[in-house]
Amino acid sequence: MIESAETSAGEPTAVRGFSPRTGRPIGDPVPVSSEAEVDRVVAAAREVLPGWAARDGGERASVLAAVADALDAARDELVAIADGETALGVVRLAGEVGRTSGQLRMFAGLLRAGAHVGAVLSPADPALGRPDVRRMLHPIGVVAVFAASNFPFAFSVVGGDTASAWAAGCPVVVKVHEAHPATSIAVARVVRAALTAAGAAEDLLGLVVGPASGAPLVTHPGIAAVGFTGSLAGGRALFDLAAGRPDPIPFFGELGSVNPVVVLPGAAAERADELARGYLGSLTLGTGQFCTNPGLLFVPEAGGLPDAIAAHTRTTTGGPMLSERIRDAYERSTAAYAGPEPARGTAGEGAWAVAPVVRRTGLAEFVAHAAELTEETFGPAGLVVTYPDPDRLLTALAVLPGSLTGSVHAVEADHPLAARVAAVLRPRVGRLVHNGWPTGVAVCWAMHHGGPWPATTAPGHTSVGGAALRRWLVPTAYQDWPDALLPPELRDANPLGVPREIQP
Amino acid sequence: MIESAETSAGEPTAVRGFSPRTGRPIGDPVPVSSEAEVDRVVAAAREVLPGWAARDGGERASVLAAVADALDAARDELVAIADGETALGVVRLAGEVGRTSGQLRMFAGLLRAGAHVGAVLSPADPALGRPDVRRMLHPIGVVAVFAASNFPFAFSVVGGDTASAWAAGCPVVVKVHEAHPATSIAVARVVRAALTAAGAAEDLLGLVVGPASGAPLVTHPGIAAVGFTGSLAGGRALFDLAAGRPDPIPFFGELGSVNPVVVLPGAAAERADELARGYLGSLTLGTGQFCTNPGLLFVPEAGGLPDAIAAHTRTTTGGPMLSERIRDAYERSTAAYAGPEPARGTAGEGAWAVAPVVRRTGLAEFVAHAAELTEETFGPAGLVVTYPDPDRLLTALAVLPGSLTGSVHAVEADHPLAARVAAVLRPRVGRLVHNGWPTGVAVCWAMHHGGPWPATTAPGHTSVGGAALRRWLVPTAYQDWPDALLPPELRDANPLGVPREIQP
Repeated sequence: MIESAETSAGEPTAVRGFSPRTGRPIGDPVPVSSEAEVDRVVAAAREVLPGWAARDGGERASVLAAVADALDAARDELVAIADGETALGVVRLAGEVGRTSGQLRMFAGLLRAGAHVGAVLSPADPALGRPDVRRMLHPIGVVAVFAASNFPFAFSVVGGDTASAWAAGCPVVVKVHEAHPATSIAVARVVRAALTAAGAAEDLLGLVVGPASGAPLVTHPGIAAVGFTGSLAGGRALFDLAAGRPDPIPFFGELGSVNPVVVLPGAAAERADELARGYLGSLTLGTGQFCTNPGLLFVPEAGGLPDAIAAHTRTTTGGPMLSERIRDAYERSTAAYAGPEPARGTAGEGAWAVAPVVRRTGLAEFVAHAAELTEETFGPAGLVVTYPDPDRLLTALAVLPGSLTGSVHAVEADHPLAARVAAVLRPRVGRLVHNGWPTGVAVCWAMHHGGPWPATTAPGHTSVGGAALRRWLVPTAYQDWPDALLPPELRDANPLGVPREIQP
Repeated sequence: MIESAETSAGEPTAVRGFSPRTGRPIGDPVPVSSEAEVDRVVAAAREVLPGWAARDGGERASVLAAVADALDAARDELVAIADGETALGVVRLAGEVGRTSGQLRMFAGLLRAGAHVGAVLSPADPALGRPDVRRMLHPIGVVAVFAASNFPFAFSVVGGDTASAWAAGCPVVVKVHEAHPATSIAVARVVRAALTAAGAAEDLLGLVVGPASGAPLVTHPGIAAVGFTGSLAGGRALFDLAAGRPDPIPFFGELGSVNPVVVLPGAAAERADELARGYLGSLTLGTGQFCTNPGLLFVPEAGGLPDAIAAHTRTTTGGPMLSERIRDAYERSTAAYAGPEPARGTAGEGAWAVAPVVRRTGLAEFVAHAAELTEETFGPAGLVVTYPDPDRLLTALAVLPGSLTGSVHAVEADHPLAARVAAVLRPRVGRLVHNGWPTGVAVCWAMHHGGPWPATTAPGHTSVGGAALRRWLVPTAYQDWPDALLPPELRDANPLGVPREIQP
C-alpha cells in the first residue's frame, strides 16, 4: 500500500494521518512544505510582527480570549478529527480543548494584569550622577513552535507555546506534528478565522508541514526563538541547529524525563493498596504518553507494596499508541529489558495497542546501571526500585538525571525523611509533588514545567504556567528617554496602570 | 627575554602581568591551572554550594556587604596593582572599585527586599481540581565566570557576574584574565579573607588561571552555568563548548557591540560643537576600551557636524591599551581601513599607546559594506556615517546587527523622527539612550546591559543591574507540599516577609 507520493529524491510530498485503532490512513494527505514555503510562512509572520508587538496587553488579551471562544465553539468537530488520528478518546480530548482554551484565557488574564511587561523604574539620582533608567520587556520576534505528538491541542498548533508567544507579542510558525496533521489543519483553520474576526492578522499563526521542514525553520534568519516539546534525540538535534546558527537563538526544549516517585516507609505501610492503584493509574493514563509519566518508583523493600504493584499491573489494560513509530519504539525498548520477567498488563484493542510493563529491581542494581535504567521509555512502562533503608535511598537518588517532576509519598511520621529526600530531588527536578502523581500539569500562574537537562534545554524557564511567556520577551532599558516617547507602560502617568517596581 | 617558563608541550606554566606603559613584565608570575587544578577548584565550590544555597536573602546580603566593605578598605592597595597592569589610571580605577562595592551593596539591598525569589502562589481550587502550587527560584549551581580585560574590578574576579551569582546563592569559579593576573590574585585574597571573616566559606570564590583553563572549566560536569564578558571570537568558542556538552548548560555571554548613535537634524544644527566634543569624549574614554564604545555615529550630511568631528578628533590624545595583543589588533584593524584618510589624534605616552581614529563615509557606502563596517574595533576608533535625509537613514539603520546600546540625540522638533528611529533601533539594542552617550552603565535595578546577538548570547538577560541575578536562578514548583516542609519564602506565614504574587 502506497501511503504517500514521493519526490524523485525520495522525500514524501505529503503527510498522512493514521488511525491508531486500525493502523490505516485517515483524512486527506497534507502537502509538505518546501523550503520556499517555509520562507514564505516566516516572511508572512514577520510582516505582522510590528503590528502585534505594538498592541498593548489589553488588546492582545481580547484576541486571545476570542481564539479561546472559537476553539470551544468548534470543540466537537475538532475532537472527532483528533480522536480519529490519536485514539486518545473523546472525553480526554474534549477536556484537552478546555485546557487549551483555558490556557489562552489564563494568559489573557495575565496580560490584563500587566505584570508581564516587568516594568522597573530607577529614578535619576543627580548626587550619584545616575540617569533616569526605565526597563520593560518587549517581544523577541517570530517564534517557531514544534508541536508534540501526545497533546494534539494543548501542546500543538495553539497550545501553550503558541498562546504564551502570542501573549508576549510574538507571531508563531508551528511545525505540525506528523501524528495529527488533519487535526492541525482543522485547528489552524478555526484559529486563523478567529484571529481575523477579532481584528488581528491571521498570519499570527503560520504552519509548516513535514519532517524536513523543521531544520529550515530553526535555521531561518527570520526566526528569533524556538519552542519544542518532544523526544530527547529530536530536541537535541534541533537545539544543536539553533546553537550552531551564525546568530544563535534561544531554544526552549522540553525533552526527556523519568519523573521519579519516592514512597516513604510510613506511607508504604499505611497506604499500600491506594499507592499501587494510584501509581498504575498515573503510569497507564493516556497509554503512558505523558512527559510527566512516572517512569521510576522507589518503594521500601520490606512490606507488600512491590507485590501489590505487580498484582495490579496484571489487571491493567493498555491501548493504542499515537503512531506506529512510537509503538515500535515502545515494543523495542520493553523487549530489550534485562533481568527478571516484568509484570505485564494486557494490550487491549487497536492496531497499535501495547501492554503496560512494570519491572522491578533492587537499589544496588539500579545504581550500578543507572545510566541505562534512567532512560525514558515513552509509554506505560515503569521501573520499581526497592530500597532497603533511607540512607541508601538518599545516595541512590543523587544519581538521578534532570526530570520535570519528583514526587514524594509520605505520612506525617515520614516528614523528617521527606525533607531529606526533597533536598536531594529539588536540584534535579522542576516540580516537587507531595502525595500525588506527576501526570496532570495544572495550568496556573505558579506552575513550573521545566527542569535541568535532559528535562529541558533551558532550566531557568517553563513551558506551562504564567511564566511561560517570559521565554519570548527581551528587556529594553530606556535612559533619560522623553516621557512622551516612552512606551505607555513606562510613562510617568502609567496610563495602562501596569504594576511597576520602583527603586527606592 | 624569557617571559615565562614553558612545559615540554609548549604551554606556559605561568601568566605574567605587563605594564602597558613600558611593555615590560610587572608583578610575580602566577602559575597556570592544570586540568587537575580546575577539577579541584570546581569540587571545592560544589562542596560549599548547599550551605550557601540554604542561606536566606538577608544572610547572603550581610556577606555581600562585608565583601564590599573589605574591597573599599583595600582600595588604594588594589588600585595601585591594577594601575600597574592596566594603565587605566588611579582615578578611574578608584571609581571602579567604588562601582564594584556599590554593586555588591545593590544586590544586598535586593536580597533584603526579597523579590529575587520570585515567589508566586496559586491556591488550590477544588472546583477546578487544581492543586495548591507555589513557585520560587533557587540557585542553579556553581557558576563559571570569565573575567574581562577592560574592567579589572567591575567585570573581573568579584564583578557583576560574581556578585549576582553569589546573590542568587551560587558559588563562583573565575577564569582570571591574563591582562591583570596580579590584580586578580590580590582581589581574591582580600575577598576570600572577607568571606571567612563574615562566616561564609572562602571557596565561594575559586580562581583558575591560564588561557588553557577556560575550556575544561566550561565543559566541567560540576559547572551549571557560565558568565562571560569578552570578544566575539572568544565568547563564541566558549558558547559552542557549553552548547556542545553532553548536558548543555546556559551560557550568558556579552560579546561584541558597535553601539550606534544617531544625531537627528535639529540636534545637529543646534548643538554641533557640544556633540562633537561629547562624541570624542565617549569614543576615547578609557582609550575606547568599553563594550559600550560608540563605534558608529550617524549624522546629517548637511551642516558642519562632520567637519567639527574631524577637527576635534585631531585634538584628541589616546593612551596605552590593556595588552600587547589588544594593541596589535587595534593597529591591524585601523591600518586596514579602506577609503579616504581618517582623522587621527595622537597616541600619547606609553609603550602600547594608540591614537584615536575616526573615519567618515556616506550612507550608501555604509549600506553596501555593512557587514564589514559594523564589525567592532576594540579601542578609540569610530565611523561617522553621513545621511542625506531621514527616510534613507531609517532604511540604513535596519541593517544594524545587535548592540548593547542605541543612542539618539534630538531636540523637541526632532521627536517625531526620534520615535521612528527608536522603533527601528529598539529590536536591535538592549538600551536606548536619549541625548547621552552609551559609555557609562548605571548600576541600578532597571538597567539592561544586553541585546541581540552578537551583543550577547542570551537576549532575554542582562549582566548589569538588578535582573542580572535572574541568570543564576531556576524555578521549582511545590505542589500540595506540607507547609512545614516548604521553604520559608513559600510558607503560609511568610516569615521572611518576601513579596509574593498570588493568583486571584
